Amino acid sequence: MRHLLSLEDAARDDLESILDDADGFVEVLDRPIPKVPALRGKTVATVFFEPSTRTRLSFERAAKALSADTLSFSPGTSSLSKGESLKDTVLTLRSMGADLMVVRHRAVGAAVRVAEWSGVPVVNGGDGAHQHPTQALLDALTVRRHFGKVEGLEVAIVGDIRHSRVARSGVDCFSALGARVTLVAPRTLLPVTYDGWPVAVASGIDEVLETADVVYLLRVQAERGGAAVFPSLPEYVSRFGLTRSRFARMRPESIVMHPGPMNRGVEIADDVADDPRTLVLDQVRMGVAVRMAVLFRLLGGDQE
Amino acid sequence: MRHLLSLEDAARDDLESILDDADGFVEVLDRPIPKVPALRGKTVATVFFEPSTRTRLSFERAAKALSADTLSFSPGTSSLSKGESLKDTVLTLRSMGADLMVVRHRAVGAAVRVAEWSGVPVVNGGDGAHQHPTQALLDALTVRRHFGKVEGLEVAIVGDIRHSRVARSGVDCFSALGARVTLVAPRTLLPVTYDGWPVAVASGIDEVLETADVVYLLRVQAERGGAAVFPSLPEYVSRFGLTRSRFARMRPESIVMHPGPMNRGVEIADDVADDPRTLVLDQVRMGVAVRMAVLFRLLGGDQE
Amino acid sequence: MRHLLSLEDAARDDLESILDDADGFVEVLDRPIPKVPALRGKTVATVFFEPSTRTRLSFERAAKALSADTLSFSPGTSSLSKGESLKDTVLTLRSMGADLMVVRHRAVGAAVRVAEWSGVPVVNGGDGAHQHPTQALLDALTVRRHFGKVEGLEVAIVGDIRHSRVARSGVDCFSALGARVTLVAPRTLLPVTYDGWPVAVASGIDEVLETADVVYLLRVQAERGGAAVFPSLPEYVSRFGLTRSRFARMRPESIVMHPGPMNRGVEIADDVADDPRTLVLDQVRMGVAVRMAVLFRLLGGDQE
Repeated sequence: MRHLLSLEDAARDDLESILDDADGFVEVLDRPIPKVPALRGKTVATVFFEPSTRTRLSFERAAKALSADTLSFSPGTSSLSKGESLKDTVLTLRSMGADLMVVRHRAVGAAVRVAEWSGVPVVNGGDGAHQHPTQALLDALTVRRHFGKVEGLEVAIVGDIRHSRVARSGVDCFSALGARVTLVAPRTLLPVTYDGWPVAVASGIDEVLETADVVYLLRVQAERGGAAVFPSLPEYVSRFGLTRSRFARMRPESIVMHPGPMNRGVEIADDVADDPRTLVLDQVRMGVAVRMAVLFRLLGGDQE
Repeated sequence: MRHLLSLEDAARDDLESILDDADGFVEVLDRPIPKVPALRGKTVATVFFEPSTRTRLSFERAAKALSADTLSFSPGTSSLSKGESLKDTVLTLRSMGADLMVVRHRAVGAAVRVAEWSGVPVVNGGDGAHQHPTQALLDALTVRRHFGKVEGLEVAIVGDIRHSRVARSGVDCFSALGARVTLVAPRTLLPVTYDGWPVAVASGIDEVLETADVVYLLRVQAERGGAAVFPSLPEYVSRFGLTRSRFARMRPESIVMHPGPMNRGVEIADDVADDPRTLVLDQVRMGVAVRMAVLFRLLGGDQE
Repeated sequence: MRHLLSLEDAARDDLESILDDADGFVEVLDRPIPKVPALRGKTVATVFFEPSTRTRLSFERAAKALSADTLSFSPGTSSLSKGESLKDTVLTLRSMGADLMVVRHRAVGAAVRVAEWSGVPVVNGGDGAHQHPTQALLDALTVRRHFGKVEGLEVAIVGDIRHSRVARSGVDCFSALGARVTLVAPRTLLPVTYDGWPVAVASGIDEVLETADVVYLLRVQAERGGAAVFPSLPEYVSRFGLTRSRFARMRPESIVMHPGPMNRGVEIADDVADDPRTLVLDQVRMGVAVRMAVLFRLLGGDQE
């Protein structure tokens, strides 16, 4: 593995192997001094062309827990990219000493291009509505640790599938690991085409409540004009929101997940968000461990 | 001590004990390599919902001098809190590995709420016009090191008491340590009520000049509409500004303090600001030592 | 050497000595763990009153490669300097523990003033259109490593000389090292006076193409109203742009340099930018090594 750009066509063994490594790093994070010298002297650059404190901080925490240095580049607040091409920015960061780049960009395929240019390993931290592989891996790790397996589970992904890289990477990852995925969304929030995706489709959350092991709620991105794709938030809640009464109908051993940040009262009711079967904070914690596993795999080889 | 949220009702022994620790850390800061491994592997998160470079950098310096990692979260420039509750933000940061949080927020009581939720120690880095305990401690440390004691000293706090958390924490801390505090402010800049505060009140700076050991000047926050609470800056200077001629009337062994940043020519004359009896830079230096003492006390227990 | 403020009147031996040190640090950067403990426990503050991610990140990388801590202060996004004088800001940062300050400011002479106040070594990271000494040193290092010497080379600096601190420091540095410098610019982009500068002047790039060993292209700062000083970008390109056909006329062993970020298609053609004889990325890499040499020289003395 030279880069982590996408989970399309990922092999099950590779995914399980990353999750196995991540299990080991969860143990590191549980130590009184949650730090190993594995990547001492390495520099991990976070190159985020879209703002994302959450994901950036998680990668930086992972880098520091491996004793790597970090180099944080945010063109939004910077003059570096003033008139500069993405390629020149990437090559500049490499020449400054970046040993690995985590890239987030609104354009589909941006991380692939960066990987062609960079000469160092690249992790896709989210490219448009395309892929966000470490999110899918942390979700899979959370599920695998909770249920002891992913194989055979029923996973329902609910919400704005069309604009969601989380959903795309999630479908790839959960399917490869042997889960059955159902997309739950209004017509307007389904992808234009999903031919060949290994998924079932449901048009309302009520159709999956009683069968799902995992109800995975996507964030309603009200700030991205959610209003344009469905009539109103109340309407969304009525068909897709995980209310208390819906939660009560779920199987007793089922769990709720969300990539965060949550809109309480919209896609998830307040008390459901706080229920112990809602594993949002586990996901955050697994995020650091999974990113440690990915950084270590991509950079650790030089060490010895 | 589990958190440091307020100095209301603080016990004198506890305060002296923190200052004793801070004295030790001043010595560390004087070393050629001003660093100890005390908090290696710990992560100190600064969670500042109001901008404050000065206080944030001071805490980060303190954390690094103890070999802790830092995690800097500024929702103002971030998308993390987009629609997210304060509680979810706090729980997310903890799940990312924050072992302690320093919180600044415009709302009175915010740090108390964070401490209820966080599951880790919390330091109040300023909540509205309520408390700013590490500022008061660094002020007390500066005074104690200068005079050898705080007991029995006359401390005059001058300026916008009403909107000042520095003043509130200062009154609590100096009083608990045995100083006598006088508030010096126009009626409009005194708190609506200060019943029960262990203070005297004066309406102009001239009333305290000849008796004060410490003249503590608050910052005129012109950018927060100071104009609304007194007629004009010249008028403020004429009644409350520490001019050269007023400084000349102060007792020869008295000192001047200010939390910074100073408005030279407003609350303090230019040459008074530069006088060796003005201890503003000592305060900055003591700030790092006091914060080391607080971080160490709250986090050090887990070690060994 | 106590500060690095300007390369005016720099002695050749001093410059060569810094470049010799930088050669050593290039070797450090080539190691699997590109890090030495030389400045452990020291704090390098970057104090940038003008935005500049590129230069700031380069200094921070250099500091970290020497195991120093960094303290990043950007008044633009901060409240520290609200109404605060530059002097008070500088003294505050020193009292917080800054052992060295890298200062960028739009005002000519700012770094000199900071050096008078700071009590610690100061590196000028760019003051107005005056000086940017580490840029000139990294350029000289790039040239010296490529040609094995600087002495006797023909260096043409092309573009907006008038507003360029890069050009001013470059003239000083290349001249002191024995190169012959020619300024290539339209009348409107030459300094009002350059009496006494050890330079020749040409009015179009075609005059120097066949003799220059180094063609050093300055950035067209379109965002600073370049339009005011020459009629149009196409006109600029026609007289000063390094097009493919012009590049073909350059001597086969000559090189192209640029301080970055490049405007491809303006001062440099796309394929020229990607040519192996264009050493822009070497410059970036040498930047880290030169800054390590400067930080070490200014701070290393206290060690052992």
